Amino acid sequence: MTEQPEHQLTLDDLAQRLSDFAAARRWQPFHTPKNLAAALTVEAGELLEIFQWLTPDQATAVMADPERAHRVRDEVADVLAYLVQFCTVLGIDPLAALAAKIDRNELRFPVPEE
Amino acid sequence: MTEQPEHQLTLDDLAQRLSDFAAARRWQPFHTPKNLAAALTVEAGELLEIFQWLTPDQATAVMADPERAHRVRDEVADVLAYLVQFCTVLGIDPLAALAAKIDRNELRFPVPEE
Amino acid sequence: MTEQPEHQLTLDDLAQRLSDFAAARRWQPFHTPKNLAAALTVEAGELLEIFQWLTPDQATAVMADPERAHRVRDEVADVLAYLVQFCTVLGIDPLAALAAKIDRNELRFPVPEE
Amino acid sequence: MTEQPEHQLTLDDLAQRLSDFAAARRWQPFHTPKNLAAALTVEAGELLEIFQWLTPDQATAVMADPERAHRVRDEVADVLAYLVQFCTVLGIDPLAALAAKIDRNELRFPVPEE
Repeated sequence: MTEQPEHQLTLDDLAQRLSDFAAARRWQPFHTPKNLAAALTVEAGELLEIFQWLTPDQATAVMADPERAHRVRDEVADVLAYLVQFCTVLGIDPLAALAAKIDRNELRFPVPEE
Repeated sequence: MTEQPEHQLTLDDLAQRLSDFAAARRWQPFHTPKNLAAALTVEAGELLEIFQWLTPDQATAVMADPERAHRVRDEVADVLAYLVQFCTVLGIDPLAALAAKIDRNELRFPVPEE
Repeated sequence: MTEQPEHQLTLDDLAQRLSDFAAARRWQPFHTPKNLAAALTVEAGELLEIFQWLTPDQATAVMADPERAHRVRDEVADVLAYLVQFCTVLGIDPLAALAAKIDRNELRFPVPEE
Repeated sequence: MTEQPEHQLTLDDLAQRLSDFAAARRWQPFHTPKNLAAALTVEAGELLEIFQWLTPDQATAVMADPERAHRVRDEVADVLAYLVQFCTVLGIDPLAALAAKIDRNELRFPVPEE
């Protein structure tokens, strides 16, 4: 299965789908900021777990193995899902937060002169 | 400072900015999938750290304190930055991965009948 | 199954058992400090996962459920195993490190006067 | 500074010191199992942070730099402190849990025949 680039997808649309998903299952009481931050950390750990014993070469080639590639995409999705839900619950715009951080980092880490 | 909703921003644009940023500083050799997965987990932990001793009420009100709100946005940005860079390095479309996961979860967790 | 207090056990003995275990299976090449630090973080996340959606009351009562109690002990063991192996590989005495830290914290956080 | 092996130290003694420390500062209400599991994960991430951009050779030599060595020992102490306090709060004997896990792993991963 090749990964379909779905460039029409936006993070906002997915945030809305995740909100609707949780609401339909009445999961909102569990989705406190603290629980979502914990779940995000747990899922990040699960992504790292795939790599923990791999050599750098094995890690770079991880997407060549279909089963591992699926697992990596699945954990990426989990991390992003909890990050987006965390942001929704606290009213944070994650793209604006990242843009502002890149702005700050451009000042903090100037490009070295040749 | 109010958070400007910048709805024109896309994750793709930010991924490109992050790539350019790392390339200009010659940081790519450090940005292996394994290192980025580790950095992602570390940053998720830093986000969780803000909440670890808070009561549920304090956690829910975290954005009311400007300094804490800034710290939360800053850690959200770091998590998202490493997730996006991880995806870029491995050729993963994070929005497509999340959309596919939501599709799977809709089958896995059917909405309970009333 | 009640938990047998085995007070004759020492952390040094377990560190030796873990070293012998890894050596017999030729796992030492994987047990670099960086890999062990990653594995430690992953296992800590797995311990946290047990608690992530629990209310404070459910979390406090977690050992009353035999299956969950087993899982908690199992993850505690994994965290401690990787921490001990990390220390062995780097020549760190974890008990001395903790004693020194408590000493420092007693100065840093004086007991409040009544 | 060489690290003094203090073999008279036991994990039980340190667990007691940590309990007394928290009690004297009235920190017990914060030391719920869930909060301690979160803090453990956060501290494991801080230990990993030291290694995240290091090459394998740099990681192996981390204790040769006194400042980094101190930071590593400090994070090891924090991880162990939260693990021990977690165990105290839930009535878990961490050494017994680890011994039992090694027993299980010896069955699960037999030593390969030559």
